[in-house]
Amino acid sequence: MTFTRSAAAALDAVSPLLSAGTRERFEIPDGLNYLDGNSLGLLPRAVPGRIREVVEQEWGQGLIRSWNTADWIGLARRVGRLIAPLIGADGADVHVGDSTSVSLYKAMIAACKLRPDRSVIVVEPGTFPTDGYIAAGVADLLGMTVRWCDPSDPAAALDRDVALLSLTHVDFRTGATFDLAGVTAAAHEAGALVLWDLCHSAGALEVDLTGVDADFAVGCTYKYLNGGPGAPAFTWVHPRLQDQITNPIPGWMGHARPFAMELDYDPLPGIARMASGTHPVLALSALEAALGAFDGVALSELRAQSLSLTGLFVELLDQRVPGLDIVTPRDQRRGSQVSFAHPHAYGLVQALIARGVIGDYRDPGLARFGFAPLYVRHVDVWDAVDHLVQVLANEEHLDPAYSARNAVT
Amino acid sequence: MTFTRSAAAALDAVSPLLSAGTRERFEIPDGLNYLDGNSLGLLPRAVPGRIREVVEQEWGQGLIRSWNTADWIGLARRVGRLIAPLIGADGADVHVGDSTSVSLYKAMIAACKLRPDRSVIVVEPGTFPTDGYIAAGVADLLGMTVRWCDPSDPAAALDRDVALLSLTHVDFRTGATFDLAGVTAAAHEAGALVLWDLCHSAGALEVDLTGVDADFAVGCTYKYLNGGPGAPAFTWVHPRLQDQITNPIPGWMGHARPFAMELDYDPLPGIARMASGTHPVLALSALEAALGAFDGVALSELRAQSLSLTGLFVELLDQRVPGLDIVTPRDQRRGSQVSFAHPHAYGLVQALIARGVIGDYRDPGLARFGFAPLYVRHVDVWDAVDHLVQVLANEEHLDPAYSARNAVT
Repeated sequence: MTFTRSAAAALDAVSPLLSAGTRERFEIPDGLNYLDGNSLGLLPRAVPGRIREVVEQEWGQGLIRSWNTADWIGLARRVGRLIAPLIGADGADVHVGDSTSVSLYKAMIAACKLRPDRSVIVVEPGTFPTDGYIAAGVADLLGMTVRWCDPSDPAAALDRDVALLSLTHVDFRTGATFDLAGVTAAAHEAGALVLWDLCHSAGALEVDLTGVDADFAVGCTYKYLNGGPGAPAFTWVHPRLQDQITNPIPGWMGHARPFAMELDYDPLPGIARMASGTHPVLALSALEAALGAFDGVALSELRAQSLSLTGLFVELLDQRVPGLDIVTPRDQRRGSQVSFAHPHAYGLVQALIARGVIGDYRDPGLARFGFAPLYVRHVDVWDAVDHLVQVLANEEHLDPAYSARNAVT
Repeated sequence: MTFTRSAAAALDAVSPLLSAGTRERFEIPDGLNYLDGNSLGLLPRAVPGRIREVVEQEWGQGLIRSWNTADWIGLARRVGRLIAPLIGADGADVHVGDSTSVSLYKAMIAACKLRPDRSVIVVEPGTFPTDGYIAAGVADLLGMTVRWCDPSDPAAALDRDVALLSLTHVDFRTGATFDLAGVTAAAHEAGALVLWDLCHSAGALEVDLTGVDADFAVGCTYKYLNGGPGAPAFTWVHPRLQDQITNPIPGWMGHARPFAMELDYDPLPGIARMASGTHPVLALSALEAALGAFDGVALSELRAQSLSLTGLFVELLDQRVPGLDIVTPRDQRRGSQVSFAHPHAYGLVQALIARGVIGDYRDPGLARFGFAPLYVRHVDVWDAVDHLVQVLANEEHLDPAYSARNAVT
């Protein structure tokens, strides 16, 4: 028996998140079925007013005085405290302010410096390219080497030479997840440190960095955290390591006495030493307002909604597009996205976009759909599959207009 | 004969910049005499509307599609092309997107890697602290050492061990400038590379990086370039070096084929390889709109206005507060600020702020006033000195309310 749109609507009616009005916290363009919140999250309704206030009042009128009067100086820490509960961290342990790449770089250097007698960084080949490039850059700088591991068994790559195991919790192509607790334990067993890239986890999965006893984590804030295009990343370091680490890019805002303008660097205690220079006030203000969309949301509800949405998508694909090569795990070892391989994946995604269903294409040959649990509904999942069925039936994906690739898809 | 306010107004009447309406390009809070544009520039009037459009339309409605439809992908390069004429550079040679600290770090590593047989970075002790901390961090990472030079003769510190001479063009405390051309030539003579920090130069001085044949330059955009609090920095690399340098923080946006998601890093040709990850769209959009305030402005006019304003400030201080210890050079070897030492400098600055004259205090014991040539008038200079005279006469600077220091002053 085919799962009906009414059945999907019935699931939405009992969703704790949708019932709590989390979808209404976002601007949703008319007629858009947005399944790309894993690339750029929707605009939270709280953001435009807050940004207007920051630009026109705090910058325009308050000017330099706003570092005190609008507490710009405390902005990065406030944002860190808002992110912390989404990743199982204490609010005092999260730094926010650099780009994802820079945050990864700082964390990798800091981690490797804690294992000076070891010479290998382990990375897996399915990681987002930047993670691999930065690992290679760090290895080159520190006279280390990069070892690629088998994603199906990263622990097998661990030995006494490994300083750091750096993994992306959720594979950006397939949506497959690593076992945070198990892999972390295996790394520690081998005397290595572990860095988790949470770009595709934070805000959609139940992440408990403290519970799994991780060492370092870095994550993006413009995907499921809805901070806006190019929003700054977060860095978490386990409290046991914070006072041992060195920030490779030391700046005055991470100094114990920034306004004394001393020649010698004396880092702040704790995570605050990961700060470098003046933080990006506009971007952090947008992010601070955006994170309000998670007010009152339990991670367990977020995860339940995400699993329900992705599960329904898989189920409907199986029913209505039989034989499709779904590369995302069917069990719960998946993130908040579903991807399938198709010889015409690029055209399929473009044809769906033309119908207002926004997913994205990823090389090689994958159509990828993200299900942001705060705002995607089961009826959106149903509609997306229905459009896909029509696209295939009409062969819209073979339209030559969809074959030319844009810069970003 | 004392210089009158009318005489100041007469200078404004013949100022090419003011006559062209550059002051009207900014929001100026009622009654505020803002002499802190060297710390955070005024809000350009073009910014609020542009930011609203980026947030509400491009992000809110366009979402991920805006990377193409709103050309977010080209944003960093567009901003680079706007900055280039302000620093004597070609538009193709400027990268924008990282924080000032991160930009300095990348440039220092890239430079030192070009001189692998040399082991010393020369820095001067009056530099902004971050520059010194980062030089020390880079030296530590690369097994090099930092050598402090005498600011009155940096060339004396140069020898065959020096890989990089890293100097701040305008001293953030005193406003004294280095001779860009002469020092650059001396560095090259010794076989060293030179990195100029233009944080207090760009947008106020006549900088000609190409003309002086510099190697690297980094600068801040939230001071005289009015990009907003914590706006991203720019990096310039001489074209002869661009294809030789390695970005120590390689990310997918600096890759020759970013969307191929390749495992191996293959940098873009030219300055674009200095990009790391996804650039900060909100901040860069504010900056792009802000830079419109320089439309049609010649650097020679900017510099002439700046010298006229700072010259008048010094002249009026000499006349009306005789004996004041002005630490800024009286000849043209100064930037666009004037600082004086005073035992009660902190209280003086606070008392002036209470009167609506915004300058700032810098340790040790300096009152600092910046004169952004696009919007500060000669009458503002006159009024500021008049307020200072009154503060001193009334001993307002000794008010205990002004002795408690804020986080940022």
